[in-house]
Amino acid sequence: MLSWIDGQSAEALSARDRGLAYGDGLFETIRVSAGRPRLLARHLARLGEGVRRLCLPVSLDLVEDELLRFSAALGDGVAKLMLTRGDGARGYAPQADARVRRVLLASPVPAYPDKNREEGVKLFPCASRLAEQPLLAGLKHLNRLEQVLARAEWSDPAFAEGLMRDVSGRVIEGVFSNLFLVRGGQLITAELTRCGVAGVMRAELLDRAPELGMPVIVRDIDFAELQQADEVFLCNSLYGIWPVRSAAGHAWPVGPLTRKLQGQLRELLDS
Amino acid sequence: MLSWIDGQSAEALSARDRGLAYGDGLFETIRVSAGRPRLLARHLARLGEGVRRLCLPVSLDLVEDELLRFSAALGDGVAKLMLTRGDGARGYAPQADARVRRVLLASPVPAYPDKNREEGVKLFPCASRLAEQPLLAGLKHLNRLEQVLARAEWSDPAFAEGLMRDVSGRVIEGVFSNLFLVRGGQLITAELTRCGVAGVMRAELLDRAPELGMPVIVRDIDFAELQQADEVFLCNSLYGIWPVRSAAGHAWPVGPLTRKLQGQLRELLDS
Repeated sequence: MLSWIDGQSAEALSARDRGLAYGDGLFETIRVSAGRPRLLARHLARLGEGVRRLCLPVSLDLVEDELLRFSAALGDGVAKLMLTRGDGARGYAPQADARVRRVLLASPVPAYPDKNREEGVKLFPCASRLAEQPLLAGLKHLNRLEQVLARAEWSDPAFAEGLMRDVSGRVIEGVFSNLFLVRGGQLITAELTRCGVAGVMRAELLDRAPELGMPVIVRDIDFAELQQADEVFLCNSLYGIWPVRSAAGHAWPVGPLTRKLQGQLRELLDS
Repeated sequence: MLSWIDGQSAEALSARDRGLAYGDGLFETIRVSAGRPRLLARHLARLGEGVRRLCLPVSLDLVEDELLRFSAALGDGVAKLMLTRGDGARGYAPQADARVRRVLLASPVPAYPDKNREEGVKLFPCASRLAEQPLLAGLKHLNRLEQVLARAEWSDPAFAEGLMRDVSGRVIEGVFSNLFLVRGGQLITAELTRCGVAGVMRAELLDRAPELGMPVIVRDIDFAELQQADEVFLCNSLYGIWPVRSAAGHAWPVGPLTRKLQGQLRELLDS
């Protein structure tokens, strides 16, 4: 599969990269179809926020240009973009003259069963909790051991995703998805100021749902509220929206608002 | 400088390594002198604990053997050992057939000023706090953005290290050191069950200080207790022990217990 480093075809990088040493970097996982990256502006917006918060000295115009060229070469698939602080000497101090490394890796579109989207999914109740770290919350950075440990908790394919809570017990997200509740015609999704990844499909929904007559509230979600929801769904930028049918001993129908959003957002990924 | 991957001389690794993608791995930073890794048993013990908790399928005998050969080739310096879960496909799920990658990188012994050890150091009060994540606490894993952010807070060389607290305000450690207080002839160091790195020099002190007539208590440390300490010092496996002379608006003398431990432990690194 296609693999570029700093704009050139390459499959290997320096073992002294700080992305490896410390997870000192960011990534985006981007659906590419017909040679174009989908939800491009939102991916770049999140990346820009990460670049700002981690103080990575890189031109986002250069990153965008490389991503567009890579996507054209890929055609159809998934582009994983990583930015790292490049090679470093030993020690945590960021180098004053850091040269950010850009890595682009292609992979096939994941073969999720159609029934995830059509009939909904069952969530595994992950025991691994998300730590509260406001400095990193919301970012898609390269420190992802919590997700690795959570995803390692189950291998039964009956569970398409896992439910992640924070160390205080609040409902936050899936392992690789964001989560929404529907209650009384309103959407509710977790505040991601202490932990969690602010997904680009979540951002898309926050913008578009109100225009479709569904107000959205972003706030903390107690575990009990999950059970009281009328509908529950997951979203991410690769699969769009999956209804949640069961989690933590509770079951929900696939509801009308979930279906409406699926219909509206489908063209973002498929067209 | 010397660089080995999987036992062979090599400077680059696959861009699809999970150490890069997720920080899915561990590391040790080891003082090598006269061709031998210092505090070897303690480094291997911590690595073994990490391998167990992250479920990394690797033979520690193989790792030890490579480290010994690498150290012999290096002679004098620092060996950084990284273990990663090897190459992965997209997605957090650990591969059932993971092949752990072993990376060994040499670097020179850091040129810390002698006065750090002799006269003591000043700590920068880091605003970055450590998140509480019991699943990862104590391990020297590859998710180190908290340390990168903390170390980026200061560039004034008057501060040799930084003081890190957890999100609840407890005193935990330095950015690349563990911290001890002395009070009434007793050593106190932070419990590392929620966050922090359980350093090998800390482990050495926990074992040896009682034999030298200094009992050690491991427990939570309030910020106020730091100011009430008779002596404060830092330790790690590269520099040994540094007295702390000032931190957070408070000053301490270089005390007798700190000096005694410095004398006793010096041969561990220098001999």
